[in-house]
Amino acid sequence: MQRRSFWAWGLESEEPTLQERQEAAAELSRRYGVSLVAPPTPVETDLQLRPPRITLPASMEPFCSTDTYDRAVHSYGRSFRDRVRAFNLHFPNPPDVVARPRNEQEVEQVLEWCSGHGYAAIPYGGGSSTVGGFEPPADSDGVVTIDMAAFDWVLEVDDVSRAARIQAGSYGPALEDQLRPHGLTLRHFPQSFQYSTLGGWIATRSGGHYATNHTHIDDFVESARMITPSGVWESRRLPGSGAGPSPDRLVMGSEGTLGIITEAWMRVQARPRYRASAGVTYPSFEAGADGARHIVQSKLWPANCRLLDPGEAQAAAGLDGAQALLVIGFESGDVPQDEAIRQAVKLAREAGGAINDDDILVSGDAGTRTGRGGAVGAWRDSFLRAPYQKNVTSGMGVVEETVETAITWDRWPQLDGAVREALQSALDRMCRGGTVTCRFTHVYPDGPAPYFTFSGLGRVGAELEMYEEIKQAASDAIIASGGTITHHHAVGRLHKPWYEEQRPGPFGEALKAVKRTVDPSGVMNPGVLFDL
Amino acid sequence: MQRRSFWAWGLESEEPTLQERQEAAAELSRRYGVSLVAPPTPVETDLQLRPPRITLPASMEPFCSTDTYDRAVHSYGRSFRDRVRAFNLHFPNPPDVVARPRNEQEVEQVLEWCSGHGYAAIPYGGGSSTVGGFEPPADSDGVVTIDMAAFDWVLEVDDVSRAARIQAGSYGPALEDQLRPHGLTLRHFPQSFQYSTLGGWIATRSGGHYATNHTHIDDFVESARMITPSGVWESRRLPGSGAGPSPDRLVMGSEGTLGIITEAWMRVQARPRYRASAGVTYPSFEAGADGARHIVQSKLWPANCRLLDPGEAQAAAGLDGAQALLVIGFESGDVPQDEAIRQAVKLAREAGGAINDDDILVSGDAGTRTGRGGAVGAWRDSFLRAPYQKNVTSGMGVVEETVETAITWDRWPQLDGAVREALQSALDRMCRGGTVTCRFTHVYPDGPAPYFTFSGLGRVGAELEMYEEIKQAASDAIIASGGTITHHHAVGRLHKPWYEEQRPGPFGEALKAVKRTVDPSGVMNPGVLFDL
Repeated sequence: MQRRSFWAWGLESEEPTLQERQEAAAELSRRYGVSLVAPPTPVETDLQLRPPRITLPASMEPFCSTDTYDRAVHSYGRSFRDRVRAFNLHFPNPPDVVARPRNEQEVEQVLEWCSGHGYAAIPYGGGSSTVGGFEPPADSDGVVTIDMAAFDWVLEVDDVSRAARIQAGSYGPALEDQLRPHGLTLRHFPQSFQYSTLGGWIATRSGGHYATNHTHIDDFVESARMITPSGVWESRRLPGSGAGPSPDRLVMGSEGTLGIITEAWMRVQARPRYRASAGVTYPSFEAGADGARHIVQSKLWPANCRLLDPGEAQAAAGLDGAQALLVIGFESGDVPQDEAIRQAVKLAREAGGAINDDDILVSGDAGTRTGRGGAVGAWRDSFLRAPYQKNVTSGMGVVEETVETAITWDRWPQLDGAVREALQSALDRMCRGGTVTCRFTHVYPDGPAPYFTFSGLGRVGAELEMYEEIKQAASDAIIASGGTITHHHAVGRLHKPWYEEQRPGPFGEALKAVKRTVDPSGVMNPGVLFDL
Repeated sequence: MQRRSFWAWGLESEEPTLQERQEAAAELSRRYGVSLVAPPTPVETDLQLRPPRITLPASMEPFCSTDTYDRAVHSYGRSFRDRVRAFNLHFPNPPDVVARPRNEQEVEQVLEWCSGHGYAAIPYGGGSSTVGGFEPPADSDGVVTIDMAAFDWVLEVDDVSRAARIQAGSYGPALEDQLRPHGLTLRHFPQSFQYSTLGGWIATRSGGHYATNHTHIDDFVESARMITPSGVWESRRLPGSGAGPSPDRLVMGSEGTLGIITEAWMRVQARPRYRASAGVTYPSFEAGADGARHIVQSKLWPANCRLLDPGEAQAAAGLDGAQALLVIGFESGDVPQDEAIRQAVKLAREAGGAINDDDILVSGDAGTRTGRGGAVGAWRDSFLRAPYQKNVTSGMGVVEETVETAITWDRWPQLDGAVREALQSALDRMCRGGTVTCRFTHVYPDGPAPYFTFSGLGRVGAELEMYEEIKQAASDAIIASGGTITHHHAVGRLHKPWYEEQRPGPFGEALKAVKRTVDPSGVMNPGVLFDL
């Protein structure tokens, strides 16, 4: 089995070579007019971790590890902060134990042990959190991280209802592999797809493949099963219900603070047979936003409706740096999408967008076309490559991250201006400049989900302080502009201060009351999402 | 201002005439081979209510009433049980006070007064509950029903985001009247549309106009504002968010147990310009279900996709009693629906459905067509007339009601059989026979929402006992078959025993913890949804 890198995105075998890193250093040096050297990458033998503070009972030894590499891998997610700390071998607070329960009885055993001793019990899916979602609390005397990797099976497929019972530790590719023989797909493709799990998606309200209509994993959950310290929380399989507040909607977004999701019945799709796509250019981001808005308000519900601002359109799809690019895509397992793309392009043009008829790609002919069809493909590749590219520049002083939110259309222009201004001026202060770009990852009839990317060159060794000031400025601007502190990256530890400002006061107290009820010892992922 | 009838659906002026009731008695006598007489309908002067048990403070007098008619109207919803009891002038437990707060300060004043004295505080919208959703608790020493009718205004319209801030006491027709000049519509048309309110819809997770995709009011709520005894619970206006569990989803379905919803930002629609519809016949309900399933799984998302079993298709649309009818409708404010209906009809036919091309109605030509297009129209009229028709037979021993649920497609045949069998055998026992029919009110990719109607002739004076045995049998069958005790009628007092079986155990405890936190005196609608 291939091992995950303890500092980089992906596997150890996918870590960048010295030559790739030297080329990146040369490229950064040219771009910023400095002279950078690629420092050596860390290796396992460099790891120096605090010894485990707690002693495993013999009955748990068969599925628990106190191995140094294991504990390092489970210390951090893959945010900018995480990558800097891992690259610098800074692991002051690793988990004491990594448990890998093989069945629900062992999950219950771990939770009982933690509840009895007051150890923090931290659910772990694929390790891709960018918000400190499974980072051990600093004030705990013992931390057990519960890696659900053994829960990796599609247990049942209901072809008639198009639903599947899937274990929560299933990684994206593995669950798709098991659905494929049935002609089915979950089609939930967050950027973290390779290294994230169903349980993680549900616990964090992950945002997926579909840019419109059913965007979050939430809408695909037919029922969920969660083990809490007070017992099993399992909803019925129902296509819809009006019986009381939704029990699943309290599981979604609970981020491991209430229990561990072990499996869920998920709504799955027929695999697409019909596709259609178009890349429409606009003279400005604002004009493109109008185009995206008209399409999503028409309820044509394209699978893709992603708007790239001129900076992103240039970097990802080779446009001229002045035009925005709206990528529209339809797909269906059941009905041809020719008319849908025709209607969407008509609306896109009415809003001032430009596209040649020849550049509208319909089912079957993708891959053989160039032009803006090529731009669509280029953007998709770039999306999947992005996390790996950050490995290459680690340790060279680059300060880069993404910041995402959602906002209603009427307030979007103000938010867009405020966040760009906050990011740019913080980059100017911290990094003597840098770039800020934005795209819409998802669009709703009542507003977009803007996703900002910023990048600058900071000082090696001071990246974290610089990053924190920039992140603070952007988050303050989002909250002041009426946005949400996260559309699909979750709250974790990172976003907690702004989440506290955002959520309704009595709801915050209600959440804590729920926590005290199902987790009376307060051991489940303490300090994530809220403080008791 | 026209007054509501205290016993019948609708206004006093809409109560049936003696002649209408005599004709109905004659018709029932013919149908059942008995000799029925229409008893006189009750009038206001017949009402004998327990005097109010509590004394209003002077400061509340301007907006509170202890009038007998007011207290009678606010005693019961409009279920079968409610109509029988009201018709029989059986009002043993009316509210003591009907408050009509004119602003949020007065809402807070009422809740404070109730919290201080331990009086039950019962939110009241349009009074259309069929589940005892606002029926006063039997064990309370004082009951204040809070009628939100003064909160009847659309406060803001955001044309760009297609959203509107609407006060919770707004009735369906009033809020549509205020949206119409903006070219907008909420398009939430439950059968109770005329006598139900936005706040009631949100509190009970009402099911509306759209038969697919966004079916419940839930999906149209952008943000909600609720006054709890512990303060204001208000979410941000957001098109989507992934920050913690959704605060709105805990308000939806709370049925007045946590607080009073005062307003909400709602997602509204462009008024439809393009329409298309078709009525497709099938040789059986099962075959029609296959047709509905294929259409909804294709994600064409028709606004209407309602399947009537042969009994309903005969009664509502004049079919032959052997065929089922699938009513398919598309509508859009933005794009023509010709291709959508063509694709849906193709799928409907592939599943064995029959329709002539001439009977597919497209935008503009509705109303001028006959045939199955006529069947579509007949069904719609019948849907809106239904609640009034029950007024006509009140007091004649008819036992009739609807029972609704949702279930995944794989388990639907079993549930359909079990519920029909339970209803029919209970009707046979209680009423020496009767009719059971079913339609799908909403359909999802993973299952339908079946809606059963039963009717029999019981014994005058024993209708309630007979009804309760029938309802019990059907509800037991639903829960045993894996369904939900309600898809869109809510839990209230009526469904509580089955809801307790259905909901996840720890979630039930969590709900109670939330209640204790935001309503520490336990005054909000006690005994509805759950017992503390």
